Amino acid sequence: MAETMELTATVLDALKAAVGSGNVHTEIEKRMVYSFDSTFQNHLPDVLVKPHTADEAAAVVKIASANGIPLTVRGAGTCLSGGPVALEGGILMEMTAFKRILEINAEERYAVVEPGVVTNDLIAAAAGHDLFYPPDPSSSGMSTLGGNVAECAGGGRGVKYGVTRDYVLELQLILPDGQQITVGNKVDGLTGWLDLPMLFTGSEGTLAIITGITVRLLPKPEAIRTALAQYDDLDAAARTVSAIIGAGIVPTTIEIMDQMTIRAVENFLQIGLDTSKAAFVLLEVDGDSWEVEQQLEQVIAICKSNDAVEIQVAHDEAERAALWKARKSISGACGKINPTKIGEDVAVPPGNIPKMIQAVKQIAEKYQLNMVVFGHAGDGNLHPNIMTDKRNAEEMERVNQAIDELFTRALELGGTLSGEHGIGFMKAPYVLQELGREGYLAQKQVKDSLDPQGYLNPGKIFIEKELELCHG
Amino acid sequence: MAETMELTATVLDALKAAVGSGNVHTEIEKRMVYSFDSTFQNHLPDVLVKPHTADEAAAVVKIASANGIPLTVRGAGTCLSGGPVALEGGILMEMTAFKRILEINAEERYAVVEPGVVTNDLIAAAAGHDLFYPPDPSSSGMSTLGGNVAECAGGGRGVKYGVTRDYVLELQLILPDGQQITVGNKVDGLTGWLDLPMLFTGSEGTLAIITGITVRLLPKPEAIRTALAQYDDLDAAARTVSAIIGAGIVPTTIEIMDQMTIRAVENFLQIGLDTSKAAFVLLEVDGDSWEVEQQLEQVIAICKSNDAVEIQVAHDEAERAALWKARKSISGACGKINPTKIGEDVAVPPGNIPKMIQAVKQIAEKYQLNMVVFGHAGDGNLHPNIMTDKRNAEEMERVNQAIDELFTRALELGGTLSGEHGIGFMKAPYVLQELGREGYLAQKQVKDSLDPQGYLNPGKIFIEKELELCHG
Repeated sequence: MAETMELTATVLDALKAAVGSGNVHTEIEKRMVYSFDSTFQNHLPDVLVKPHTADEAAAVVKIASANGIPLTVRGAGTCLSGGPVALEGGILMEMTAFKRILEINAEERYAVVEPGVVTNDLIAAAAGHDLFYPPDPSSSGMSTLGGNVAECAGGGRGVKYGVTRDYVLELQLILPDGQQITVGNKVDGLTGWLDLPMLFTGSEGTLAIITGITVRLLPKPEAIRTALAQYDDLDAAARTVSAIIGAGIVPTTIEIMDQMTIRAVENFLQIGLDTSKAAFVLLEVDGDSWEVEQQLEQVIAICKSNDAVEIQVAHDEAERAALWKARKSISGACGKINPTKIGEDVAVPPGNIPKMIQAVKQIAEKYQLNMVVFGHAGDGNLHPNIMTDKRNAEEMERVNQAIDELFTRALELGGTLSGEHGIGFMKAPYVLQELGREGYLAQKQVKDSLDPQGYLNPGKIFIEKELELCHG
Repeated sequence: MAETMELTATVLDALKAAVGSGNVHTEIEKRMVYSFDSTFQNHLPDVLVKPHTADEAAAVVKIASANGIPLTVRGAGTCLSGGPVALEGGILMEMTAFKRILEINAEERYAVVEPGVVTNDLIAAAAGHDLFYPPDPSSSGMSTLGGNVAECAGGGRGVKYGVTRDYVLELQLILPDGQQITVGNKVDGLTGWLDLPMLFTGSEGTLAIITGITVRLLPKPEAIRTALAQYDDLDAAARTVSAIIGAGIVPTTIEIMDQMTIRAVENFLQIGLDTSKAAFVLLEVDGDSWEVEQQLEQVIAICKSNDAVEIQVAHDEAERAALWKARKSISGACGKINPTKIGEDVAVPPGNIPKMIQAVKQIAEKYQLNMVVFGHAGDGNLHPNIMTDKRNAEEMERVNQAIDELFTRALELGGTLSGEHGIGFMKAPYVLQELGREGYLAQKQVKDSLDPQGYLNPGKIFIEKELELCHG
């Protein structure tokens, strides 16, 4: 792995020659702004570089490679696993200047975008052509497509529409040696020896730098219906989720929020949520008009038979937005409770959602922690969030034990330690536990073969502690 | 790359100890039966080995690895790109003894199978639980799931449901060093650093041996409707395909057959197909009952406005089977025309289907070859098949020129050289053209990192000619 090293004047001059001196910053104020992501974990990069073209970015990559300088890439910094934090210092390359939507092809149904395009801007541009880009991470108002691809972002529509990986057709990349390459093509359903776009999607900045993205678009669904079911019992809400999936219904979205989440949002927004309720389940179905009415009736019936005490159905876009408002505000609301919010991201088979929610509650009680539970329950993806204060060493010790136990329980229930947020360094200590020694080494072999210097986003995914376990 | 070597008595004894002497064959008759796949290209393995458990298979892998003996794995041998042909001799490991369906989980909607399970047997078992396994390669009556995963098989339902890769959740593998490993898990929508199941799906026996497979299942669609549109003009049929996709309709299946295909099938089956027609388009829609009727009306209207001269709609399962009969029989029928059938497999964006079909016709005329065109046109996947005789050197020279031109035209039209059949050795000479030098080397680095000896399925994907081009 590359080690942090001081930047020489020669390297700085080379960077300035590559991207223009106005786009190279070593001032502490600038570096601080780019020292953290949405995990609020932070590390100062030595220099901030902002390229405007793929050739400029490739020149930066070559300088970093030639000098063995750690290179970390950043989009909007909404990452929840530490991906864009320059853990070993070095160069932080910011990609927000790459913000053009280059093509929306309505006939072939794809979009070509630069990596700095904001997710919602693509969703809106596609909608303007009656097309639909499904992945919608909760940060979609800020997050960029480059970051979405790097982390393989998911979102609320994952139950029905999958994750970013399911939409990436073609990528323009800069490889660790500075070569520019296009992988994939605009043909949907490509097969072949190695699906290179899939190899790089979700590679979290450790294998290549993304400079261009072609994504598949879908026809826009004719109709969408949204409902919010309220419960006096969290377990009843969890059972509703399992029952819907078990009945063979595929809604667009099934989101769950526990009482602590409801209270946090209400404290934050003051929008009149009923904080006496134990849980909310937000449901959305889409498709052709007749089909969605049928599905809506079915899911409402299942909510009722699983003891929902109140069900609201949106009748227009304004009512729909109102039902969604609580869900979309959770992350911000939870950030207000305590100085430090640790957002976790486990996924279990949907049938095990009730057990996983019980496990979260037991763990919160055992370690006496403020924990909320919400998430994309329809595909088994829960976000237990711990509200704590990282300056309180005693509490942080309990937090770490609780996280260990969360992951252990998720794996026991047939789950995985990352539903959609990526590994970064937040989940790195748990990778070995999930993959086992051989699986871990298979991943490491791929990383080493493509980035033998180990200078792309060092300190992520593969960490020394695990390597010792492997070799020990 | 491993070189062919003579098997010593010691190695044979070790193999017999590993799988039982009744499962090790060196007799020429046995080896000949396993010397070819559905490409009818052939090469004799030195020994045929049939393990019955993952531990037995792992023991075989260790023997091959320790002695640097080429190891090629085979399912049912329906591959159309040469995957299970033991090009460099050595050990051919046959996996058909792994034929148990271990679990159909109706609640979580997945199936756990051994790699030797026949595709249609899984489809039928899933249907018994009101579930649906969509990938349906035309060879699904014979092909095995292990082969489907190794080649990332597609099929007629790819338009709507994607390919095998979209259904693989978890794999049990034997790595090149003989270690057994499980990658992925039963949680749908898993994300993470490297999607290991995706790395191995489509790896064509060059990275690992598959001993267990968990696939995602879908709820069984409520209704299916099937129609066959007939045309006096091939281009009108091709335009129909583009128009349906362009209209935002997503049928389950859109298959095209040209006149030569229709004639070949009629000669073979004598079922009364109208051989005066220039083309057939077979269409299928599925979903809930009301939705499929709507879709059926829409696609029929598009067929009519694109000059379909006759449209038949199936009213029951027997009529549906009758409409499908011609399509399902193409491969067999074409095999009867000339001694050698070269089945190609290009894919282009669906809007370019008319241009690609024109290109195929022009190429057939230019090189004076018997070529039929059919395929899963809805996702842009065409199978131009050349009926020739490999003993005719002069004609084979024209065949090779025609194939070169086919691939060049497909790439020019934004396409890819393998829609669903894999690369094997049939497509290996064209990989560099599609991927470019850097893309080729990125793939090669992954192969070398996981199989540094290069003894797993040697002679496939990466061939000397290309390596020389890369380094030259």
